[in-house]
Amino acid sequence: MSADTLMREKPKAESLAATMAELGRKAREAAAELALASDDAKVTALLAAAKAVRSRENEILAANAEDVELAKADGIGAALLDRLSLDPKRLEGVAKGLEEIAAQPDPVGKVLAHWTRPNGLDISRVSVPLGVIGIIYESRPNVTADAGAIALKSGNAAILRGGSESFHSSRALVSALQDGLRAGGLPEAAIQLVPTRDRDAVGYMLGMSGVIDIIVPRGGASLIERVQRESRIPVIAHLEGLCHTYIDGAADPEKARAIVLNAKMRRVSICGATETLLVDRKAKAMLPPILADLRKAGCELRGDPEVVALDPAAHPASEQDWRTEYLDAILAVRMVDGVAGAIGHIERYGSHHTDAIVTEDQAVAEKFLREVDSAIVLVNASTQFADGGEFGMGAEIGISTQRLPPRGPVGAAELTTYKYLVRGNGQVRP
Amino acid sequence: MSADTLMREKPKAESLAATMAELGRKAREAAAELALASDDAKVTALLAAAKAVRSRENEILAANAEDVELAKADGIGAALLDRLSLDPKRLEGVAKGLEEIAAQPDPVGKVLAHWTRPNGLDISRVSVPLGVIGIIYESRPNVTADAGAIALKSGNAAILRGGSESFHSSRALVSALQDGLRAGGLPEAAIQLVPTRDRDAVGYMLGMSGVIDIIVPRGGASLIERVQRESRIPVIAHLEGLCHTYIDGAADPEKARAIVLNAKMRRVSICGATETLLVDRKAKAMLPPILADLRKAGCELRGDPEVVALDPAAHPASEQDWRTEYLDAILAVRMVDGVAGAIGHIERYGSHHTDAIVTEDQAVAEKFLREVDSAIVLVNASTQFADGGEFGMGAEIGISTQRLPPRGPVGAAELTTYKYLVRGNGQVRP
Repeated sequence: MSADTLMREKPKAESLAATMAELGRKAREAAAELALASDDAKVTALLAAAKAVRSRENEILAANAEDVELAKADGIGAALLDRLSLDPKRLEGVAKGLEEIAAQPDPVGKVLAHWTRPNGLDISRVSVPLGVIGIIYESRPNVTADAGAIALKSGNAAILRGGSESFHSSRALVSALQDGLRAGGLPEAAIQLVPTRDRDAVGYMLGMSGVIDIIVPRGGASLIERVQRESRIPVIAHLEGLCHTYIDGAADPEKARAIVLNAKMRRVSICGATETLLVDRKAKAMLPPILADLRKAGCELRGDPEVVALDPAAHPASEQDWRTEYLDAILAVRMVDGVAGAIGHIERYGSHHTDAIVTEDQAVAEKFLREVDSAIVLVNASTQFADGGEFGMGAEIGISTQRLPPRGPVGAAELTTYKYLVRGNGQVRP
Repeated sequence: MSADTLMREKPKAESLAATMAELGRKAREAAAELALASDDAKVTALLAAAKAVRSRENEILAANAEDVELAKADGIGAALLDRLSLDPKRLEGVAKGLEEIAAQPDPVGKVLAHWTRPNGLDISRVSVPLGVIGIIYESRPNVTADAGAIALKSGNAAILRGGSESFHSSRALVSALQDGLRAGGLPEAAIQLVPTRDRDAVGYMLGMSGVIDIIVPRGGASLIERVQRESRIPVIAHLEGLCHTYIDGAADPEKARAIVLNAKMRRVSICGATETLLVDRKAKAMLPPILADLRKAGCELRGDPEVVALDPAAHPASEQDWRTEYLDAILAVRMVDGVAGAIGHIERYGSHHTDAIVTEDQAVAEKFLREVDSAIVLVNASTQFADGGEFGMGAEIGISTQRLPPRGPVGAAELTTYKYLVRGNGQVRP
């Protein structure tokens, strides 16, 4: 009996509760099986899933067309509509992504540390899956495939709750992933989609303490706050990326120019895009060509009084600008006194995601690396490198901005934990 | 103006709020300074703190006598009174503990991983402190010294909230720790005790999201549940230790005998003490001398019907016995069918803390290590080895039973997180 049928036959709350409980029960069973699955089985499943995505292209695109139709009827904006839409090229990207995750090294069963005690006890710390991961995300259907595949590679069962706009697309994609799981001899409940668009389902997920081991909220700050407020389940939090690039007085002007343009404008909508440019008063002379590049590329500039004096076309920045993750072609620009001024601004306004310095002075670079307390700190490189793939860690489900590990890019290896194995020959504690 | 004075002058809630806010502000300032402190400064501070504990012995013991007096007046039990009481020998143990923590390697600034990307980006993952740690614990005053020192060694600022029974002892100990901090040129707010016995202070701590980075609740399950329910601050959870020892059919009978007696009776009140003994039906013949040893050592036995048939002096165990962490001289004993039966029982009733198998069969041992999903899994050794010191990890603030790291013993190294440092020479993302 499908969830849809259930919902027609029973009062809504009761049927949703039953649906979610059943989902949880199956996920726990699958997690126990997956934790012991060989990498071969996981690779077989992921490659078969890629094949199924390709062979079921028509079906998946038809489901996506249904989502797009409904979204248009709801008057959804053009940017969101673009994120929601699949086409043969994007779908091939999804299939390739699955193959890339398959090719990653198995993150489970790695000996992370190993030592022997004077009493002969042999101790090792070995990576193991987290268990059941609940992933709550927005409307991009490709996240369904990525998140499900990363969870599988790391031996975890996934309960996926995508944006309701992408429900039909996600359902078709999960169906293809489950084809893969069957081909690998793995339980198809290893990757489940919440089988309803009912928004109350999120509340049920947050209450599934003891069933879901970890919640990964991929959405705005309000979603993360809701999860932390409502749920007792531990979270891997992906907060906003209020990223800074700082041009030091000792910067190479050409590097600064290339890095700033890329950090802001390569893609303005990703969490690693620079939102605020900090400029050492000693680097003032480098600024005009940088601002000219940005404006030419279509970027709106908002500056402090010194910046506006230098570039009267810039809008005056307000206090709120230093706190804003634009995710758009807008840059806030502020003059500061050297690296200490930059660090002070970043600690006060930043989100501890990703921050960069441009300088040729090694000592200044090391001070910045040491004192900026962000998940990723770069020297002489674009903040847009804040990405698991660019780090060589493979596909990721986001950049964690929390303090407890995992921090930074969260790929398959970061969705594991560890346990201690102790081998003795009869030792007792004195 | 002291907190006590504040409390006499202002309405209680207002003064407590002000006290806690001031504590938090100082802790954040101290954390920023500590994160950049050298290991030399931390070592100097810890050694000076040990010296201060010794030189202020009379003062600390007088404060402890005050706590003991109040506790007696409150009719506290003998076991708790013993945990609360300090004497010159115990205080020397506290001082030695500080010296041992000083001697540990610096857990901060370690390069945990390092690689170079094809585009030349040099990436390293480096350990850094967590920030401000709030530690809520019960009445043993020595935890005040251990927890404060471990936090310091790992570069974190600590806000300590001990049991109100140990308030005067803890205050005197923190005063000695702060002598040490001053001697090391470190901010004395690096280690602060909540300066009031007011039980509402815990509620304030739980609400200090954005000020306290991590809460470590060391207490019963109800405290952990309260923290998870009331607080948005991430937790390092130390749940109960419902530990099992399983005697396999292929066990060495003498090893089994020594291990079980030690695992249960060495110290019955620690979280690594075995609470349930599982016995392979094939190992039945090994059981009588084991039970005789236990009874001789003063242990009450509660068995399933097969065990009671074998040993009529054993009490019948109820379903509740399999779920009980006695922390007392009581052992539940159950017959199972081989290692699969043992694993099934442990997964159903255990707390994922520490579990052990006794067997000479390598394949069975490896199955147990692989399939038992606990923080610590042992072969042919006592569960009482579940301890940071016994693992060679130095002093610990407990054994984490949560799934996300840190899992298992939590020492100074486990109170760190990491950040990524990326060194480039002008790279932009294609």
